[in-house]
Amino acid sequence: MSAKPWEGVIPAEDAASFAAGYQDAERELDAGERPALLIVDMTREMAYPEYSIGWPGEGAIEANAALLAEARAIGIPIYFTKDFEDPDHRPTAAERGRWKYRRAERDPDLPSGDVIVDELAPLEGETLIHKGARPSPFFGTNLASLLTYEGVDTVVITGMVTSGCVRAAVLDAFQHNYRVVVPHEACADRSQLSHAVSMFDMHMKYCDVVSLEEALDYLRTIKPRAAATPR
Amino acid sequence: MSAKPWEGVIPAEDAASFAAGYQDAERELDAGERPALLIVDMTREMAYPEYSIGWPGEGAIEANAALLAEARAIGIPIYFTKDFEDPDHRPTAAERGRWKYRRAERDPDLPSGDVIVDELAPLEGETLIHKGARPSPFFGTNLASLLTYEGVDTVVITGMVTSGCVRAAVLDAFQHNYRVVVPHEACADRSQLSHAVSMFDMHMKYCDVVSLEEALDYLRTIKPRAAATPR
Amino acid sequence: MSAKPWEGVIPAEDAASFAAGYQDAERELDAGERPALLIVDMTREMAYPEYSIGWPGEGAIEANAALLAEARAIGIPIYFTKDFEDPDHRPTAAERGRWKYRRAERDPDLPSGDVIVDELAPLEGETLIHKGARPSPFFGTNLASLLTYEGVDTVVITGMVTSGCVRAAVLDAFQHNYRVVVPHEACADRSQLSHAVSMFDMHMKYCDVVSLEEALDYLRTIKPRAAATPR
Amino acid sequence: MSAKPWEGVIPAEDAASFAAGYQDAERELDAGERPALLIVDMTREMAYPEYSIGWPGEGAIEANAALLAEARAIGIPIYFTKDFEDPDHRPTAAERGRWKYRRAERDPDLPSGDVIVDELAPLEGETLIHKGARPSPFFGTNLASLLTYEGVDTVVITGMVTSGCVRAAVLDAFQHNYRVVVPHEACADRSQLSHAVSMFDMHMKYCDVVSLEEALDYLRTIKPRAAATPR
Repeated sequence: MSAKPWEGVIPAEDAASFAAGYQDAERELDAGERPALLIVDMTREMAYPEYSIGWPGEGAIEANAALLAEARAIGIPIYFTKDFEDPDHRPTAAERGRWKYRRAERDPDLPSGDVIVDELAPLEGETLIHKGARPSPFFGTNLASLLTYEGVDTVVITGMVTSGCVRAAVLDAFQHNYRVVVPHEACADRSQLSHAVSMFDMHMKYCDVVSLEEALDYLRTIKPRAAATPR
Repeated sequence: MSAKPWEGVIPAEDAASFAAGYQDAERELDAGERPALLIVDMTREMAYPEYSIGWPGEGAIEANAALLAEARAIGIPIYFTKDFEDPDHRPTAAERGRWKYRRAERDPDLPSGDVIVDELAPLEGETLIHKGARPSPFFGTNLASLLTYEGVDTVVITGMVTSGCVRAAVLDAFQHNYRVVVPHEACADRSQLSHAVSMFDMHMKYCDVVSLEEALDYLRTIKPRAAATPR
Repeated sequence: MSAKPWEGVIPAEDAASFAAGYQDAERELDAGERPALLIVDMTREMAYPEYSIGWPGEGAIEANAALLAEARAIGIPIYFTKDFEDPDHRPTAAERGRWKYRRAERDPDLPSGDVIVDELAPLEGETLIHKGARPSPFFGTNLASLLTYEGVDTVVITGMVTSGCVRAAVLDAFQHNYRVVVPHEACADRSQLSHAVSMFDMHMKYCDVVSLEEALDYLRTIKPRAAATPR
Repeated sequence: MSAKPWEGVIPAEDAASFAAGYQDAERELDAGERPALLIVDMTREMAYPEYSIGWPGEGAIEANAALLAEARAIGIPIYFTKDFEDPDHRPTAAERGRWKYRRAERDPDLPSGDVIVDELAPLEGETLIHKGARPSPFFGTNLASLLTYEGVDTVVITGMVTSGCVRAAVLDAFQHNYRVVVPHEACADRSQLSHAVSMFDMHMKYCDVVSLEEALDYLRTIKPRAAATPR
C-alpha cells in the first residue's frame, strides 16, 4: 500500500494505542461489487480560492475528475452534494443551524458559490443531494433510500472538507453498514493537521483510506452495468 | 476562558485558516435554558484499564461524577449510552457492523464490560440509550424523540472516546439543531493527538468546548425543575 | 366536541374494540404552548381538479386559508410540503421510489403542478419542505431539526391526502414525541372511506382529530411571538 | 390473484377514484431476489386473548408460522419486533411517548406480555428489534442498517395491528425504497374495518397485498442461501 497522509504526524504512542484491539493499518482493501461514488461539496465556494471560504480544494479537483471519469465509464451511481437546490436560497435561521462561524462577506461580483465546480459538473442522470447547511449528506436527505434502490454495498467518498462534511459522510455511510473507501488525494481541508488526523481516525475506525491510484484500481475491477436510474 | 486542549498542538497556519469566516475561538458560551446531560460510553470496558480495550478513561470518571451530581441536583434529563441492554448480548454480524477492528480477547474472569462504571451508575428515572455498536447515540435510537419530549434546547456531551462516539454524538446533536457544550476534562481518547484535534475541529464547527468548571458554572445557572419523566 | 368524520362509518363493534385500553374518543384536546402549522401537499396537482391527479381538495383550501391566517397572526412557525424545489424536476427512478401507480398524463398546457395553490401561497420566512416523492414530510428531510430549533411542542397538521401523506406526517410527528392536532375539514382524500377510517385510526392512536373551529380556538389561545427565524 | 380483504368494503366510487393515475389492483406481484421476513409485534399481549390488550391475533399466528418455516428453510434474514428487550421494563414518560390511550390493567398473574408468542419463538441468529413503544420498526432502531448489511431488496411484512405498527412498517420500508409484500392472513387488527381499509390503502400506494399462499409461492422461488449473519 501507498503512504498514508498521517505518516509523520501521528506520534508512535498514539498509533500504538490501537495495537491491542484493532486491525493492522496495512490491511487489504475491503470493498464490494456494487459501489457508488459520493462527491461531497466540491462547489465553487469551497474549492475556488477567489471565494472567501475558498480553501486548497483545487488540488482535489483533478483527483475527483479522474474518479468521476472512471465511475462514468463503468456506469455506477454517482451523487454530488451541495447546500441548496437554488444556490441563492436565503435560509431561515433554523435552516442555517447552529454553526460556529459567521460566514465572511464575499465579493458580490462573483457568481453563486453553491454550485458544483465546472470541472466536475454533473451529467443528466447523476443525482444532486441538497443537504442544506448540515455536514452529513445522509442527515435530512433521502440519500440512504437512493443507495438502497440501487443495491449499493460500497461507497467511495471524496470532497471537502475532510474533517467536516467528508468525515460526517464517512461516519454515516459506515453506520448504515456500507463499506467505505476514501481516496485521500480527492479530499481537502483548510487545516492540514485536521486533514491528516481525520484520515487516521477514519481509517482506524470506519473505512479504508487509500490512494487515488488504489481507488481507481478498485473501480476498474467492477463490471460495467447499465444505468439503474433511467428517468 | 480557560486553556483549550489543542493549545500547542494546532499549528498557527491551521488555526489561521479559520480566521476569514469563523467566530473567534475565545467566544462566549452559547447555551440555553433547558439542558440535558449525555454521557457517552463510560462503561467498564472503555474506562477501566483491566479490560483489553481499557484506555485512559479513568481521568474522565471524576469529571463526569461532578457533572452528574450537578445535573441531578437541578433535575435535568440525564442519558447514558452503552452498546446493548444485555451486556452479554452476542450481536449478529449485521448488528456488529463494519468496524475496522478485531476486538482483542479479554480476561474471561472479568465481569461484563458493557456496563456503566460503578462511579456513574444510573439512578431510577435516568435513561440508558442502547446504541448497539454504532458511534452516534442518535443513530438507530430514539434519543432525538426523548429530547423533544423534554423540550431540551442544549446538550452537554461527555465520555469516550473523543474522536469516536463523543464526536459522533456532538455532530448529530448539532445537526438536530441543539446547542452543544463539551467539557473537555470529562472526555478521553486512546490517541492523545486525536483527542486534541477533535476538540479543535468540534469547537471551530459544531459546539463550545469548555472546561469542566465552565460547564459546572453554566449548569448552576439553570433553574431546578421537577423531573419531567416520572414513570 | 363536534361531530367526528367517522361517525356512521365505523361499526359499533370496531369502536368498542378500543374500549378496554384506550382513552375516550370524546377526550379533551391535548396541545401545548408552542405549536407549528404543517400544511401537506396543498399543490395545484393535488387540489385543483383540472390536473389528472386532482381530487376534491378544493374543499380543504378554504379551511387551510383560515388556519394560515390565524397562524400568521400569532407568528408561529409555518411549513408547507411539496415534492421538489424545481416543480419541473425529472426525478430518477430511485428518487421516484416504489409507488404503486403510473401517474396519468396531464394536459401539457397546464402550468407546473408541484406548486402550492395560489390561495395558500407561502410568504417570505415560511419554510418549504421538499419531500421528494415520499409520503412523510419527516422522511429524508430536515423538518425535525427545524422544529427543534423553534422549540415546537405541538404540530397542527393538514392537507392531502388524509390516508397518504397527512397520515404519514401525523405518524412521524407522533413518533418524534410531538403533540399532534388534525382539523379534519382542512384535509381531503380521493377515497372518502379511506378519509373517514384514517381519521378514526389516527384519533384512537396518535393525535387529536378536531373540527376547524376547535383548531382555530386553540390557536387563539397561543400568545403571539416574534418570528423566530429571521433571515 | 386471490380475493382481497377489502372486497365488499370499499365503495365503487372510492375504488374508482384511483383509476386515473394508478396501477390496476390486479397487477402482478413486484418482488425481488433477496427478501427478508419482518414479523411485527406478535407478542403475548397482542395475540393472546387473556391479556387485556389481546385481540384477534390468534388467527394470524398460524399464518406466520407457515411463513416462518419457509423463511427458515431458505435461510433469508428474519426480524421480529417487540417493545423492550426487558419485557418488564418500566418506560419513562418520554419513552412511552404520546399514545392516545391508557393501557388497561392486566391480570397480574399472567407472565410478561412483551414476549414473542411461543408458536413463533425466535431462534439463534434471528434478530429482535426493540422499537420501544413506537409504531414503526424503523423509527429509532437500526433495522435499516441491518437490511443494508444483508443486501435485502424486498421485505415481507406481517403481524399486528394492521392499521398501526404493520402499516407504519410498510410505509417506512416503502420510503426506504424496498419492495414490500404483505400476506393479509398473517396480519390482524382489533378493528375489522380499519384492517380492510388499511390493506386497501397500502395496496393502492405502497406495497402488494397478497394471500398467504401467494407469499409462500414467492418465497419458494428464492434460492436458498447460507446465513449471512453468523455470530
